[in-house]
Amino acid sequence: MKGNPITTSMIPSIFTLANLLFGFLALILVIEQQYTLAAAMIVLSVLMDSLDGKVARRLSVSSDFGKELDSLSDLVSFGVAPAILTYQAILYPQPDYVRYIGLGIAAVFALCGAVRLARFNMLNITTYFVGVPITFAGGFMALLMFFRNMLPWYIYLGSMLVLACLMVSRIKVAKLGK
Amino acid sequence: MKGNPITTSMIPSIFTLANLLFGFLALILVIEQQYTLAAAMIVLSVLMDSLDGKVARRLSVSSDFGKELDSLSDLVSFGVAPAILTYQAILYPQPDYVRYIGLGIAAVFALCGAVRLARFNMLNITTYFVGVPITFAGGFMALLMFFRNMLPWYIYLGSMLVLACLMVSRIKVAKLGK
Repeated sequence: MKGNPITTSMIPSIFTLANLLFGFLALILVIEQQYTLAAAMIVLSVLMDSLDGKVARRLSVSSDFGKELDSLSDLVSFGVAPAILTYQAILYPQPDYVRYIGLGIAAVFALCGAVRLARFNMLNITTYFVGVPITFAGGFMALLMFFRNMLPWYIYLGSMLVLACLMVSRIKVAKLGK
Repeated sequence: MKGNPITTSMIPSIFTLANLLFGFLALILVIEQQYTLAAAMIVLSVLMDSLDGKVARRLSVSSDFGKELDSLSDLVSFGVAPAILTYQAILYPQPDYVRYIGLGIAAVFALCGAVRLARFNMLNITTYFVGVPITFAGGFMALLMFFRNMLPWYIYLGSMLVLACLMVSRIKVAKLGK
């Protein structure tokens, strides 16, 4: 492993880093108030996240490094970015009390995402998920953003809270696309 | 391990989650253009990050879960938050070409931070660091923010680039405070 050159085993990590890059750009776009584009970046992250696993399995190069990098990227793209996007686009413009509760729930969403990732990595289970995957939770919040002219704010607040709880729950979720 | 209740082993994770929370708040404060406060949040994250390890060693409850959660929090607080803070506060107001290069280098800083964390976790070395720790890199960028009325923009751009390279370098760095 020492001094590892760029090899086949690095290829899935390129998709994982693309996942992180799109998550990073989503945050930049939130600052620029480009909320639809920010949500689109998170959707691109979901795509990259599904590709890295597929490519790793196809090339038979799943690695601990890749798994670690995947978790790290997932927290940014599907935990932090959707929480900040939802807070800023939907909850920040609401009355003060909604804004403060919204900030709290957005933080809880990101924290629960981190707990889920840390716990799932530790369990080392590969056949099913324990708790709703953060990719689903973050992707769902990004998709909701495309309907923000139709849906009231409490749908966003409620979804974040429910998804946060489901991420740290002990519910077994079947893995798709294996 | 199953159904783990809140036990002594959970105490260090409270500090780790506080680290992540301050990183999350730093991002929110960047959006609100409160750059000094955002930098202060990152400094608080550094403090929390140094406490979680100390507490875990004192209580002899170092765990894989804690290590995972620590890496996840570190990427947000010391990779993503300082990069976005530096880009937004210092580089965004510059001429177009600085802004675009700045965005690229900020993204590289965050990505190199993730690679460093994934690689270091995989190596499982506990006596020294390989590459400059992300906590140092992110903490340094946060401290620089307090001098932003005195320093030119290229100090920030250069520091981010150098620190990004040092994080993924193979330099052995002594661990302090063991």
